[in-house]
Amino acid sequence: MKLATLKDGTRDGTLVVVSRDLARAVPATGIAPTLLDAVERWDETEGPLRELSGRLDTGALDDEAVFDEAAVAAPLPRTWQWLDGSVFQNHGRLMAAALHPGKENSYEEYPLVYQGAGDDFIGPRDDIVVPSEDDGIDFEGEIAVVVDAVPMGTKADDAEEHIKLLMLVNDVSLRIPIRREIGTGFGFLNAKPSSAFAPVAVTPDELGDAWHDARIHLPLEVEWNGEWFGSPNCREMTFDFRQLIEHVTRSRRLSAGTVIGSGTVSNESRSAGSACIAERRAIELIDEGAPKTPFMSFGDTVRIEMLDQTGATVFGAIEQRIVQYAPVPA
Amino acid sequence: MKLATLKDGTRDGTLVVVSRDLARAVPATGIAPTLLDAVERWDETEGPLRELSGRLDTGALDDEAVFDEAAVAAPLPRTWQWLDGSVFQNHGRLMAAALHPGKENSYEEYPLVYQGAGDDFIGPRDDIVVPSEDDGIDFEGEIAVVVDAVPMGTKADDAEEHIKLLMLVNDVSLRIPIRREIGTGFGFLNAKPSSAFAPVAVTPDELGDAWHDARIHLPLEVEWNGEWFGSPNCREMTFDFRQLIEHVTRSRRLSAGTVIGSGTVSNESRSAGSACIAERRAIELIDEGAPKTPFMSFGDTVRIEMLDQTGATVFGAIEQRIVQYAPVPA
Repeated sequence: MKLATLKDGTRDGTLVVVSRDLARAVPATGIAPTLLDAVERWDETEGPLRELSGRLDTGALDDEAVFDEAAVAAPLPRTWQWLDGSVFQNHGRLMAAALHPGKENSYEEYPLVYQGAGDDFIGPRDDIVVPSEDDGIDFEGEIAVVVDAVPMGTKADDAEEHIKLLMLVNDVSLRIPIRREIGTGFGFLNAKPSSAFAPVAVTPDELGDAWHDARIHLPLEVEWNGEWFGSPNCREMTFDFRQLIEHVTRSRRLSAGTVIGSGTVSNESRSAGSACIAERRAIELIDEGAPKTPFMSFGDTVRIEMLDQTGATVFGAIEQRIVQYAPVPA
Repeated sequence: MKLATLKDGTRDGTLVVVSRDLARAVPATGIAPTLLDAVERWDETEGPLRELSGRLDTGALDDEAVFDEAAVAAPLPRTWQWLDGSVFQNHGRLMAAALHPGKENSYEEYPLVYQGAGDDFIGPRDDIVVPSEDDGIDFEGEIAVVVDAVPMGTKADDAEEHIKLLMLVNDVSLRIPIRREIGTGFGFLNAKPSSAFAPVAVTPDELGDAWHDARIHLPLEVEWNGEWFGSPNCREMTFDFRQLIEHVTRSRRLSAGTVIGSGTVSNESRSAGSACIAERRAIELIDEGAPKTPFMSFGDTVRIEMLDQTGATVFGAIEQRIVQYAPVPA
């Protein structure tokens, strides 16, 4: 089942069920007005949504419409909690070797996770609006899960049942503020503008064999200004999403609709490229003594997509442009 | 105007207007069902809420009831964003001197702020439910503001109009996980269980002369197990809430209902005591070579309250007990 949220001028948008090929969509508002509501009442809404999805995939429906990836918000335009990991250890090792040589780090023992802002996610074609080119503008290609309510103290073995939906993320990052913020120990704030999400959220069964061990076993395709930048396979996630859930529920419960991200997808093989510029720069620094690739400029574009084994798009594509923030006149 | 949220079995509770002396309350659901809704439509709701508040404070209303501080949730039981500062530099200097001597820090130049979890705030009499006494259980007495929608790039000079409500917070902290998490640079997660809030949120005018320069000029009274622990005055906040808003909107906008905290209230004068155990332990370490005061145990209580110049309670009291988490049987 694939779900999306049409922009309608409200903060939460309108829930639609989308056909597997992303060609058509049908309103699901008779079941739940918004995706957040659907996830909060998943026990009641999943069945009717799957039934509607089945009918849409097997024939024309009276109220169906063409699905337009440019007309959607993030599947969850806002949610109660956004927790983003950094659990591809290849990425962690490269960044540590380049930026913090000799620094002790516990990231191989505990999943690294930061608390992000979930109040203002943006859609797959929305501009990335940032204040300055001097901030080291970067994309981060990631995958994420949406969970239902998860109790405190949930163990990894009991966690997978809470994973209801999968999504693709562009976790937009500003690398210059990150240096200061990581130094404080307090995490990221100025460094993290709104994150963007691919057009549809999908139930794990949509991935077939490519979803197992609470990992996605498919490459993430990343292009910068229309050129290949990387296609690292998500299967190299060091901690899986079950382990992430155990980690983040150690001293708190999670509200339904909490989104948990993987962090930048990264592979040991250099031929896979990278899913963020900072990692390529780290490799350049390690291999060649200095980073050569610049960060993004206003007008630059980024494209992030995942194709299944047949070459079909799973989530639709994130396609965004960097734009300078201009205050709205009072 | 004073506002509170009655527990009613839903996640967002029921909005009530509370009399200035906290003795009586009247439902405000005809104006807005929840405080979050009221803040999201503040231009429409503030006038009617103030009108109702005025009538409650000047005479008996048919639908009024006794206000019971034990029957309320946090004023905002959940909200879209919780940003907590640490901007009493006396606290920062003590913690740095005790725990990170020699470490460079930019906290005197930039406000320190971490992104917290706003999905699950607890009420003023709710138990603090934590997994282990070995985690270094601590309270943090703080003040906080609730803002309406704030644009990206808001300057301090334009920020005060966005401050709609003031609250008291117990930012429960687990000091052992903090050590590891601050070392990662990624901020706090395991270290921060749900924060608790005093019974009512108040408009800034309720403080009269004690609110100016976007600071509260009153002491915060903190008791641990019924004994005085500290009464530091909030006026020593180094960055005020206008400066905090400028800082946190540098690369993003804030949704209406965002809560911004001050961090542990702390005064240079040692006679003011402390608003968290970690600070007292830091002082002991600096003065006597080792911390002597233990962290909290199961069954311990904490009380946090603010009295105005006449000795009347402003927000009502936070009174909580530490309880071990027990999984709910499936």
